Amino acid sequence: MARIAGSSGPRTEEAIRRAGLKLIATHGYAAMSLRQLAAEVGIQQGSLYNYFRNKQEFLFDLIRGHMLDLHAALDAALLPEGSAEARLTRFTEFHVAYHVARAQEVFICYSELRSLEPDNLAAVVAMRRDYERKLGDILDHGCATGEFRLADTRMATLAILAMLSGICTWYKPEGRLSREAMQEIFTGMVLALARGETQALARGEGAAEVAVVPSRRRRALQAGVG
Amino acid sequence: MARIAGSSGPRTEEAIRRAGLKLIATHGYAAMSLRQLAAEVGIQQGSLYNYFRNKQEFLFDLIRGHMLDLHAALDAALLPEGSAEARLTRFTEFHVAYHVARAQEVFICYSELRSLEPDNLAAVVAMRRDYERKLGDILDHGCATGEFRLADTRMATLAILAMLSGICTWYKPEGRLSREAMQEIFTGMVLALARGETQALARGEGAAEVAVVPSRRRRALQAGVG
Repeated sequence: MARIAGSSGPRTEEAIRRAGLKLIATHGYAAMSLRQLAAEVGIQQGSLYNYFRNKQEFLFDLIRGHMLDLHAALDAALLPEGSAEARLTRFTEFHVAYHVARAQEVFICYSELRSLEPDNLAAVVAMRRDYERKLGDILDHGCATGEFRLADTRMATLAILAMLSGICTWYKPEGRLSREAMQEIFTGMVLALARGETQALARGEGAAEVAVVPSRRRRALQAGVG
Repeated sequence: MARIAGSSGPRTEEAIRRAGLKLIATHGYAAMSLRQLAAEVGIQQGSLYNYFRNKQEFLFDLIRGHMLDLHAALDAALLPEGSAEARLTRFTEFHVAYHVARAQEVFICYSELRSLEPDNLAAVVAMRRDYERKLGDILDHGCATGEFRLADTRMATLAILAMLSGICTWYKPEGRLSREAMQEIFTGMVLALARGETQALARGEGAAEVAVVPSRRRRALQAGVG
């Protein structure tokens, strides 16, 4: 709230970003006024326009900035080669660590998609699709090598991302589990989900039966597609 | 928007509920005014007070009503006995069907927890915990019978609920998959996740090793607990 001593361009920009995240996470985008935002940062409302043209552009910059950071960090973390299991493990560890550290941005990226104007929404949806595609490629790779058995890799992609991103809604750093324990537990669950139908082996069924189940199930599912 | 012809108490109450859901889902609770709500229903603002005392009570009624309906429907759907796999299958099919039919309520129940006053929030959190406990009981049952292998049933509960509730954020009835196909695909993924570490068998490891892995892993996780 207090005016920032010795504020300069980049520092003010970061202060505006943080104040905006807090206000939107607390009240929602529609309820946040630029007057509130300026007061929270400790600058004149008019000064905000040195950083963005209007409130919509501010929201878009927040969400797009988060998505750009996320993509850059993921690209640096991902294994360029290796088994699908190793690649999926790395993806999961990355996603958990990145998201628990930025729960507020993640919440806004989900809850305020409704507030983006159509062109901005389309741009963000395309960036999310691209992120989903990076996980989908790993799952497709695993299905091709036989490491994974999934009835529908697109559904599995969305299921895994929802499961992992959901951590943001309840995780507290001071809670029962460390970040490392969370990464291990969630990696175990994601791998079990992806290995999927090889499970039949563990129940004493023959390998021939296992090989048949996926295609049978796939036909049944395709028949049910609306 | 138009005034409801022949409106009576219960019909007006339902119209207010629907209008409120729509306004909160679109703009957020903080940005919705009771004047807007009354206009949307086509009644005088003062008439709203026949149905609730203030805006906070209205939000609480919406969320509590959703949770009460959810619990009643779940209790009617759940298998009172049977294998853990059968019980988990029933739970998953129920949760998917109920949530795709009520995506707006689910979105509000997650995104507007922030807007509940402390006592109301505590009541809703207790109802959610109770819902989570019903799934947790099934997972504990499966771990006890050996059907499931999970490093942490509490984390598995939250993971499964996030995975299934996430469907609400993207499912469209006119999309590629029918509700029944969605139920089958998601049940397959949830069961694979829950069966979890029996997977080692499918990779050619011996039964003795499988029996050892969970307790070893559990010790490692406990050491990492914060």
